[in-house]
Amino acid sequence: MVSLSFAPIYFDYNATTPVDERVLEAMLPYFSTRYGNASSRHEYGRVALAALEKAREQVASAVGAHPTEVIFTSGGSEANNLFLKGAGASFRGAAAGNKAETVVIGATEHLCVLNAARQLRGQGWRLAQLPVDGGGRIRPADVEAAAREKPRRWSVMLANNETGVIQDIASLAATVQAVGPDCGWFHTDAVQALGKIPINFRALNAAGVHALTISAHKAYGPKGAAALIMDKRLDLMTQIAGGGQERGLRSGTENIAAIVGFGAACELAVSRLKARAKAQTVLRTRLEIRLGEMGATVFGMGVPRLPNTCFFAFPSVDGETLVGKLDRSGFAIASGSACSSAKSAPSHVLLAMGVPDELARCAARVSMGEKTKPAEIEGFLLALQETATKLSRFAANTRL
Amino acid sequence: MVSLSFAPIYFDYNATTPVDERVLEAMLPYFSTRYGNASSRHEYGRVALAALEKAREQVASAVGAHPTEVIFTSGGSEANNLFLKGAGASFRGAAAGNKAETVVIGATEHLCVLNAARQLRGQGWRLAQLPVDGGGRIRPADVEAAAREKPRRWSVMLANNETGVIQDIASLAATVQAVGPDCGWFHTDAVQALGKIPINFRALNAAGVHALTISAHKAYGPKGAAALIMDKRLDLMTQIAGGGQERGLRSGTENIAAIVGFGAACELAVSRLKARAKAQTVLRTRLEIRLGEMGATVFGMGVPRLPNTCFFAFPSVDGETLVGKLDRSGFAIASGSACSSAKSAPSHVLLAMGVPDELARCAARVSMGEKTKPAEIEGFLLALQETATKLSRFAANTRL
Repeated sequence: MVSLSFAPIYFDYNATTPVDERVLEAMLPYFSTRYGNASSRHEYGRVALAALEKAREQVASAVGAHPTEVIFTSGGSEANNLFLKGAGASFRGAAAGNKAETVVIGATEHLCVLNAARQLRGQGWRLAQLPVDGGGRIRPADVEAAAREKPRRWSVMLANNETGVIQDIASLAATVQAVGPDCGWFHTDAVQALGKIPINFRALNAAGVHALTISAHKAYGPKGAAALIMDKRLDLMTQIAGGGQERGLRSGTENIAAIVGFGAACELAVSRLKARAKAQTVLRTRLEIRLGEMGATVFGMGVPRLPNTCFFAFPSVDGETLVGKLDRSGFAIASGSACSSAKSAPSHVLLAMGVPDELARCAARVSMGEKTKPAEIEGFLLALQETATKLSRFAANTRL
Repeated sequence: MVSLSFAPIYFDYNATTPVDERVLEAMLPYFSTRYGNASSRHEYGRVALAALEKAREQVASAVGAHPTEVIFTSGGSEANNLFLKGAGASFRGAAAGNKAETVVIGATEHLCVLNAARQLRGQGWRLAQLPVDGGGRIRPADVEAAAREKPRRWSVMLANNETGVIQDIASLAATVQAVGPDCGWFHTDAVQALGKIPINFRALNAAGVHALTISAHKAYGPKGAAALIMDKRLDLMTQIAGGGQERGLRSGTENIAAIVGFGAACELAVSRLKARAKAQTVLRTRLEIRLGEMGATVFGMGVPRLPNTCFFAFPSVDGETLVGKLDRSGFAIASGSACSSAKSAPSHVLLAMGVPDELARCAARVSMGEKTKPAEIEGFLLALQETATKLSRFAANTRL
């Protein structure tokens, strides 16, 4: 049942990454030797607590935050839900019968932001979505207009998981601040940015960003650890109540091994960022030149993007079929975001960018990792050309 | 900083357990080799999904449930919060302005149940707590009275983390059912029961229990994986919205390695249960006879308890001081539940049992594990006698 006897070339690093061997090495003692509960008041507990706080410093340092601004969660989805449902909870404008409160999100947010915001709408909130241009970027004028409505909460992603398109979050947050005070708490989902582009919470915070989400498993850390980095003025209602861990903001026994891995991954993410981005830019340029020659459309071309991500489509070649064929040829790529790739609806990200439904259904994503080699890209291009040509001919014949 | 250069004898298995070496072995491939995202539609994704579903079968099998009744979460606190905040959410009695809905919990529940219920109270719910007798057990008459109020949700723990006292959950749930239909959804927190006493969800469900929580790290599995076992008639509102994992009830990339470990731990928990319980009962009997001879009170004595747990107090010997002294003598025990042991308030569990505040402050807990040896108990008894005598003399002198 469990196979991987042959290991395909992995081009799906935006879905998840392998745990770096140095990260795993750091984690291992915390399973069977240093296994204490960080709340326990004995040697085992103190050792666990020390590891927790060291990891908190590593994570904070990687994103220019203070350790006391780090709230550990079990994943990016949980951290994003925590902000969206808990930020500024003590302010009860709607409950006081004044008017419906508003939450503003980008139109291309990850489903965990979109669906958390929809839950708020189900509870009487107004949900406003910021449109994007053809390149996937939010226009400052739309942000300014939204800010005038005095929303309660904002969530706009730093980098998109499907297209890799980067928003100028500092500038958008500053636009909100320029409208005036009481324009709400501003959060950015930086899950896809960690280890790919620099993140500086101090600078973002100065511009008006109050919270930020990062996750270990997108940056060579383990699944099961993430963080909401948070301006301490933001009063947050805990979503998991209990023993009062994480300064009362997230209860539950801390997953020390995963958090230790998160800390180690954060250190590596920063130390390797420049070299990795440079190498990936070279590879992606080669990939996208060839894609263009082969007649593919690359989404978000010409706008700032994560260096490892290429979201493209061959008109008339169904994306899911392409992914399936390439999987059998030994290349693991995605047809959309990993979370939604079990569904067959076209990407909401592409539709928001004005991509026609028909072309959006042809989308496929290559996301490279730090071990991606030039020869792997060349091998992929050969397989892609063969597969796309066959599928394209098949589609043409079907239409006749 | 991180020490454990000398390893004290660990008597705090109710706080957390080491990961069994066979469990860790099962987990290891899922960090750096079989690292796929279970939502991905390629070889890596399929391998992750197969591992997830195999673990789901192992977990279900260990507690007599069907795999489709298993909802994986990041921990017991999350699973308990998910039930308490999400069960029967489509029923909107209170929102329709009828009357306040009621949630019923036991007076000795874990803080994650108590504080989640308090959050509901903050949102307009009525919170009813079932008192316990001097042995820590809930009286059927109190359950019957509570059921007549037609509450919406119940949460009563199977076994207490501090005292080890076991409730007859099937009988209590049947009492609710006997009052009539529409008496609400009944949940039991079975986190401390897994691997210590048999759990059969099918039998409990037949009696009227609709959901049950278990967690990996209390049973030689890793931190970061737990489950809400759930009757599918119970409509549950997701607390972490997003990509729709776990049948839409808990979003977020599945923590495959931890879940694989949870599955392996569940298999071991069942296979070893009888032998472990028998051995621990012998050790605990010896421990408690000596404690009695030394003048200590054992809480919950004479009522059904987990075989590994002994919660006791020496009158006039402060529990936290005792724990600190024993830690320095090489024995890791707890002064209360691990989650709350960072606080200095006396145990709410003991206060609910009618233990005077002064004696409750003297409480200390020994919880044994499967590797606990007779010699370790004897060593502990020697250290305890010496320490307790000294502290008792000190307290007597202070009072003079």
